[in-house]
Amino acid sequence: MKLQEIGEFGLIDKLSEGCLHKENHVIRAIGDDAAVFIQSAGEVVLVTTDMLVERVHFLRNATTGFNLGYKALAVNLSDIAAMGASAREAFVSIAIPEDCSVEFIEDMYKGIKYLAASFQVNLLGGDTTASPKDLVINVVVVGSAPQEEILYRDGAKNKDLIYCTGYLGDSRAGCHLIVNGIKTESDGLKALKNAHLIPRPMLMEGKFLGGFGGVHAAIDISDGLSSDLGHILKQSRVGAKIYAEKMPISENLKIFCKQFNLDPVKYAVDGGEDYVLLFTVSPDRAQKLYKKYHEIFEFPLFEIGEINDSDQLVLEFPNGKTEQILPTGWNHFKKT
Amino acid sequence: MKLQEIGEFGLIDKLSEGCLHKENHVIRAIGDDAAVFIQSAGEVVLVTTDMLVERVHFLRNATTGFNLGYKALAVNLSDIAAMGASAREAFVSIAIPEDCSVEFIEDMYKGIKYLAASFQVNLLGGDTTASPKDLVINVVVVGSAPQEEILYRDGAKNKDLIYCTGYLGDSRAGCHLIVNGIKTESDGLKALKNAHLIPRPMLMEGKFLGGFGGVHAAIDISDGLSSDLGHILKQSRVGAKIYAEKMPISENLKIFCKQFNLDPVKYAVDGGEDYVLLFTVSPDRAQKLYKKYHEIFEFPLFEIGEINDSDQLVLEFPNGKTEQILPTGWNHFKKT
Repeated sequence: MKLQEIGEFGLIDKLSEGCLHKENHVIRAIGDDAAVFIQSAGEVVLVTTDMLVERVHFLRNATTGFNLGYKALAVNLSDIAAMGASAREAFVSIAIPEDCSVEFIEDMYKGIKYLAASFQVNLLGGDTTASPKDLVINVVVVGSAPQEEILYRDGAKNKDLIYCTGYLGDSRAGCHLIVNGIKTESDGLKALKNAHLIPRPMLMEGKFLGGFGGVHAAIDISDGLSSDLGHILKQSRVGAKIYAEKMPISENLKIFCKQFNLDPVKYAVDGGEDYVLLFTVSPDRAQKLYKKYHEIFEFPLFEIGEINDSDQLVLEFPNGKTEQILPTGWNHFKKT
Repeated sequence: MKLQEIGEFGLIDKLSEGCLHKENHVIRAIGDDAAVFIQSAGEVVLVTTDMLVERVHFLRNATTGFNLGYKALAVNLSDIAAMGASAREAFVSIAIPEDCSVEFIEDMYKGIKYLAASFQVNLLGGDTTASPKDLVINVVVVGSAPQEEILYRDGAKNKDLIYCTGYLGDSRAGCHLIVNGIKTESDGLKALKNAHLIPRPMLMEGKFLGGFGGVHAAIDISDGLSSDLGHILKQSRVGAKIYAEKMPISENLKIFCKQFNLDPVKYAVDGGEDYVLLFTVSPDRAQKLYKKYHEIFEFPLFEIGEINDSDQLVLEFPNGKTEQILPTGWNHFKKT
């Protein structure tokens, strides 16, 4: 179906169903000049926003609408997770080109709503407009947390231990498989593709870290470990050493790297879009945190290094050799 | 200067200055995974968002960066004004094509910051990304108000009087002058252009209306009186009669219409983007409201008609003839 057949208001009618999941505090959702809601008592407000642009972040004919919508929301939920907060409301603006079908947009909203339902996030509004050429999606997520539980990038302290909540490099490997159109029969390689297409935002994990006490800084892995740990170090005015043999590398990534003769450590350090959480914790709280986390989430934390008082990020290999790591993650506009 | 020379982080550094105006309640602004702020005690949260796309909403070579940035924020502030609320924080996402200079983007942020400063709105974050072809700007504004003062579209009641806070049709006339490249020497025609380019969001006026009591419904004129009053009528399940001789038509619009042999009433009824407020008020509160408003804002309110229990919007002419008005405002995607 073409958008011209149903118009903007027809589209909004189609998309407005199934948007509310936790509505006691919602006074007004879609349909007025603004959405209106009551902020959780005793908590502060968090807002994050991310824009996805066709031919920059995705190719319309290489993704499904569902996966695109899912990921557009996931990357924002991941930002709220990285602050140790709860995600509450989402707002989606889309600019739709004439050659994009109503079915694709509906599928996209299915992806958004599927993920929103998983985390009880309300879809409270947005904007729909035409676009001359490229599909553009901007998602805003409003979160909430007790002020003292919020995790920032600038709180890392000398001697903190550095942890990851999941594997690194899987998403980049999955991206490689997708972009190069490599058929994948094995479940392992399919899992790499899914790590790239439908990453799970670690909201419960973030909330746990914010509330546990002793976690000093956190960020989610979007640009890659080298870039994202780099942000923590720069903003906290510290350095760090990380260890090649401690990189959280999945069995799937090992198989992939063996098959294509690639270095899994490089994938873990420079890959991006894993959307796992990276955090630093006071050494005296680390063991207790590790144990409690493992109990609750039935998955281990990966200790990958420690903060020091240098101004560098250094990677140490098992043979004792070291290498200074410079951020190599994604930077829009820069030609590399 | 080309964006490739300074990169995404260089650009963000350039744009991050002068973003805070009222910061006691701001815990974290630009620079982390999300912005963090404290909601005003006893007030609820409002969120609105609007996306502007090149070649749909504007032509890059027919606008200045300043005017574009100004208007992108203004249309969102106007939505908050229409709810009777205060605007607090803004978030700006931009997708920037390669042929767009750093200077244009900086100029755009000057326009955003100029308007933000006028209303003490903080710029707390956003996203910057590349775009293959078109410049896209998405603005989000977070507002705040006592719950009982918020004005919705669905509250209009039978016998309410309908008012406008300013002239209608000026923006459409200004747009006509700009699009057709008509040189304007007179101050009057220049004012029409400015009504289109740099509309003033009526935040103080909206706040006053929300707090006064007796105002039942409000909206801002973005799509045009016929469309926007249509939204109020549909959502309130009422009808209305408006009067041709009561349309708030400026002297400037009269001069313009005389010069180009056009009908000013048609401009007032079908024009859009005036960003004045349209509201309905209980007849027993109307006179007091009119007087108080005039005292405070030193500008009259325009009474243009009244709500009735029909399901139609009717325009009455001085000779007693009537005409049913159908919404003719902007609807993306629909071919007309």
